[in-house]
Amino acid sequence: MFKATIDAELFKDAVDIVSVLVDESIFSTDEEVIISKAVEPANAAMVILEMKKNAFDIYESDSHELGIDLKRLSTVLDMAQRGDMVELELEDHKLKIVMGGLRYHLSLLDPSTIRKIPKVPQIQLPAKVVVDGSTIQRAIKAASTVGSYVALGVEDESFYIETEGDTDKLRFVLGKDELIDLQGDDVRSLFSLDYLRSITRSRAFGRGIVTLEIGIDYPIKISFSFADDKIRALYIVAPRVEAV
Amino acid sequence: MFKATIDAELFKDAVDIVSVLVDESIFSTDEEVIISKAVEPANAAMVILEMKKNAFDIYESDSHELGIDLKRLSTVLDMAQRGDMVELELEDHKLKIVMGGLRYHLSLLDPSTIRKIPKVPQIQLPAKVVVDGSTIQRAIKAASTVGSYVALGVEDESFYIETEGDTDKLRFVLGKDELIDLQGDDVRSLFSLDYLRSITRSRAFGRGIVTLEIGIDYPIKISFSFADDKIRALYIVAPRVEAV
Amino acid sequence: MFKATIDAELFKDAVDIVSVLVDESIFSTDEEVIISKAVEPANAAMVILEMKKNAFDIYESDSHELGIDLKRLSTVLDMAQRGDMVELELEDHKLKIVMGGLRYHLSLLDPSTIRKIPKVPQIQLPAKVVVDGSTIQRAIKAASTVGSYVALGVEDESFYIETEGDTDKLRFVLGKDELIDLQGDDVRSLFSLDYLRSITRSRAFGRGIVTLEIGIDYPIKISFSFADDKIRALYIVAPRVEAV
Repeated sequence: MFKATIDAELFKDAVDIVSVLVDESIFSTDEEVIISKAVEPANAAMVILEMKKNAFDIYESDSHELGIDLKRLSTVLDMAQRGDMVELELEDHKLKIVMGGLRYHLSLLDPSTIRKIPKVPQIQLPAKVVVDGSTIQRAIKAASTVGSYVALGVEDESFYIETEGDTDKLRFVLGKDELIDLQGDDVRSLFSLDYLRSITRSRAFGRGIVTLEIGIDYPIKISFSFADDKIRALYIVAPRVEAV
Repeated sequence: MFKATIDAELFKDAVDIVSVLVDESIFSTDEEVIISKAVEPANAAMVILEMKKNAFDIYESDSHELGIDLKRLSTVLDMAQRGDMVELELEDHKLKIVMGGLRYHLSLLDPSTIRKIPKVPQIQLPAKVVVDGSTIQRAIKAASTVGSYVALGVEDESFYIETEGDTDKLRFVLGKDELIDLQGDDVRSLFSLDYLRSITRSRAFGRGIVTLEIGIDYPIKISFSFADDKIRALYIVAPRVEAV
Repeated sequence: MFKATIDAELFKDAVDIVSVLVDESIFSTDEEVIISKAVEPANAAMVILEMKKNAFDIYESDSHELGIDLKRLSTVLDMAQRGDMVELELEDHKLKIVMGGLRYHLSLLDPSTIRKIPKVPQIQLPAKVVVDGSTIQRAIKAASTVGSYVALGVEDESFYIETEGDTDKLRFVLGKDELIDLQGDDVRSLFSLDYLRSITRSRAFGRGIVTLEIGIDYPIKISFSFADDKIRALYIVAPRVEAV
């Protein structure tokens, strides 16, 4: 049994956190929480979405593994009008979605056909940067007009995003004053812009306060929460080895 | 002789009623009214536009059959700025269109080359639904993300729009309270979404109060009017036989 | 040495004056002014951009020939936010561009690889029309939906823009009252719409007061200025010989 009611726009924002990276995902529900973990096909970027029971107006659930076609779910949620509530219910192995006069029966995917949920690596990272998501969004968008890879780093009490194209070079620097928080050591890691572009493009990312945890040629952790911390997003992206 | 002056935006809205379904059409004028009847190539959907003399600021006309390339006419009308009046005049077998300092001579098509105007079937339908056009617009748009056909029907004092895709199912229900009027028997007919998508996408449709007349596996009549009833639109769409 | 600071949006508007016509251009700087002259590949349209020293907040320069990839420069300037200042500096044979926390190193092109700067023809033209750029923008856009060539002319104390397609004809007339100024003789010259479409589409053109100097089957001069006359644009377009 699974039955839940939530603001449609909020649910859309949560689903998008996963859909920017993968097309299908398993939503694991239990009495307290819905968690969706997914890894993109090249195994270089991973997402963990967590929606606590109290993010919902109504929430009752046993343990289920719901295989979701994220594009179809997004299309349904796009039909919502501002202020609409969405009722979700597991019914005859389909997810029934009700918004206003609209009733949608979404077929569920067989969880065994979806890429295995990866083990989330436990990593400690030496530097932490806290900053407006919109600033990162803008910098990554700018960087992707120049090159294919981007270095994120900390140096001289500043956070930087740097990229090099065939001929041009772009560096975006934020001093301690322009950041919400900056802690730890000098670090630098290189990432594919494709993944960062995807991750940063969701509406919830642009609205939130984002924490970046960075190491030296090591994976990056990118996290933020919304709806009073009741919905949490964590991305882990593998580094590229920098050409010498 | 044909000479008429009308608000450019209003005329654009009227022309669009026909142009959503066909590319060329005959505008038949006489002393009292302009009527354009057209049927789309597969003979499954028909439109009748009626513009009364008093929808115009100036209107003088003998009987004419004007063969109009609707795309070209729309392109000209798109040049209008809010509040512009458009003057239309038959001159040297062309339609002269004047808006502000702009003068356009639109070639007329030979009426004999345009699909024959069909005889409009006289049909009585057992159920009638009156509803905001914008609601139908939204439901049809939603339905077309799911399937290719849509059933419109009345059941339990409610109007519904229903569609089934390969795996998913969508049902949009409006109770008596959410409708402006609902009369008659329980009915259900199936239609191609292509035609309903075209018909419902015009600006005038979205702004108007729409009357749907529905039968059991029978054509649907969709009508609305604007400019104080001086401009009227009627669509008739043939049903699809439902697979059992 | 070249070092300059200017409002980013203003600089973008200036660069666009050249970039609507060509992809690369030489910016010639000296102590007093930056001038960029360019001719499009078919030699039928030419642009001269002049930015005076006092259009800049800071301006110090020796004589330089800076080969600019205009698309790349525009992409960088697009990253500006309203109110941003942009600092430009010649550094290690690159143009360093700083806006807020963003630092961009733009490779310069070898000036010898860029199309030779043409000699600007000294021509006197018998008629002059002064008019809002937005009016010309709108008329040229309308004309380009009809034909490939457009005649600009003066007749009966009015300025007109006229075009003929395969079947249709458009004429846009502005009387003396609707113009800022009209002087000189009756004239008429025919031009390719491609060039006029390009020239008229920049934001600065649409905002400015534009002077058109026209002859009989002769080149047209199109000029305007902005930023209190500190930035000036001049286009010269060769005529098409009219088919008889």
